[in-house]
Amino acid sequence: MHLLLTNDDGIYAPGIAALKQNIQDLGHVTVVAPDVEQSGVGHSITFSHPLRVREVQANNQRIGYGVNGSPADCVKLAIYEVMEQRPDVVISGINMGSNVGIHILYSGTVAAAVEAAIMGYPSIAVSFEISGRYDDIHSAAKIARSVIERILTHKLPKGSLLNINIPSIPPDQIKGIKVTRQYAQDFQENFEKRTDPSGRSYYWLLGTDKTRHREEDTDIHAINEGYISITPLRYDLTDYTMQKKIVDWNWKGIVS
Amino acid sequence: MHLLLTNDDGIYAPGIAALKQNIQDLGHVTVVAPDVEQSGVGHSITFSHPLRVREVQANNQRIGYGVNGSPADCVKLAIYEVMEQRPDVVISGINMGSNVGIHILYSGTVAAAVEAAIMGYPSIAVSFEISGRYDDIHSAAKIARSVIERILTHKLPKGSLLNINIPSIPPDQIKGIKVTRQYAQDFQENFEKRTDPSGRSYYWLLGTDKTRHREEDTDIHAINEGYISITPLRYDLTDYTMQKKIVDWNWKGIVS
Repeated sequence: MHLLLTNDDGIYAPGIAALKQNIQDLGHVTVVAPDVEQSGVGHSITFSHPLRVREVQANNQRIGYGVNGSPADCVKLAIYEVMEQRPDVVISGINMGSNVGIHILYSGTVAAAVEAAIMGYPSIAVSFEISGRYDDIHSAAKIARSVIERILTHKLPKGSLLNINIPSIPPDQIKGIKVTRQYAQDFQENFEKRTDPSGRSYYWLLGTDKTRHREEDTDIHAINEGYISITPLRYDLTDYTMQKKIVDWNWKGIVS
Repeated sequence: MHLLLTNDDGIYAPGIAALKQNIQDLGHVTVVAPDVEQSGVGHSITFSHPLRVREVQANNQRIGYGVNGSPADCVKLAIYEVMEQRPDVVISGINMGSNVGIHILYSGTVAAAVEAAIMGYPSIAVSFEISGRYDDIHSAAKIARSVIERILTHKLPKGSLLNINIPSIPPDQIKGIKVTRQYAQDFQENFEKRTDPSGRSYYWLLGTDKTRHREEDTDIHAINEGYISITPLRYDLTDYTMQKKIVDWNWKGIVS
């Protein structure tokens, strides 16, 4: 089996190294990841400057390929240019920080998996909540491997994407797995206004206290309750309910 | 009525100026847009550096506020910090280039509208196909205004988002309006490999010939056929069909 591994924290991040170590016996793992951290880049792609691919070593060992682009760029380049064989599955992670709720839309980790799904490959995004309670990436990687292995026994359909979030608690306290939906309410993140030494204003985006969001069956609820969350995602954004409604609006006479 | 206008081509772009000119009698228009072009940034947000807002003038007239961030940042900042009153509708555009199919996922123009929808505001993204056939942004802006005006008579629900694409043909050749779905197949964009003067490889992402994609009822089909396309979008990415399927997979025994 051929696995493509990428992330958005960059090729030197501990999350991707821990995951690689734990999945390398599942098949041939190729790592293609951004040169530097790309958190919060969303599904950006690069067309205004050229991309470069370089072999990356750490501790005198080849660990993979670094790209001066986004996670989505890495997936495209890996599949079209780097890998000799097409991957059987594309895995993105482990991201340090959960990707739940509307943060899914901002996430480079999820965007890489979405890009793979668009290209027709089964894909899995893995994120590890970091809340200060517990931050052992190695135990998270072990859990990720078990979940991935189980998913692969089920022949994940072409173009499907599972978004996995692991809660920030010791493994023996994790209660199990929940198949969830995306929490789709606003986190109401706003800004802290400060004044710089020259007297000019600037703004920092403030994070949200995610533990406040307790809608049942959602990804965020699952990790708050101590479960691993698995949410299947799609990349067709059409709102079909709204489509049926507005098709009957009066659209006549706008153009001759 | 209060309208917030943003884009991803930057505050000095002709598309936003033409749209502002054409909608300014609909209500009080506040422009908050990126300082520089942000095309292809997707739904990126900025939390690693602070954001600044500056008043922008052109031809000795105040045209709005520039932000050193992404389109989604602009929407958040505009609503939380810049505008004195909450907007009745958020409009993003006019983007130079269509935002159809999976390109919706890469689009900063659409991301701004998605951000507004998440925050609970009705929003409209407007893009103008540029294919070399016809590129008069002023006639596109006139059409955009007519479509927006019509949409506003229907009281767009809270948090709904309409993605409008205008075809690249003279207004009198536009056949009408189609309410469409997102074309959700891969465009199969790949790379051109080149060698730099030092003998090292680099890659340019190649665009796609969108006229090849002719699936009925889709956004891309509509503009290819000479119609204005309107696609309602949602930001809940959950694949509910897949969710029902995988909930029955055997998830036991992965964690103790």
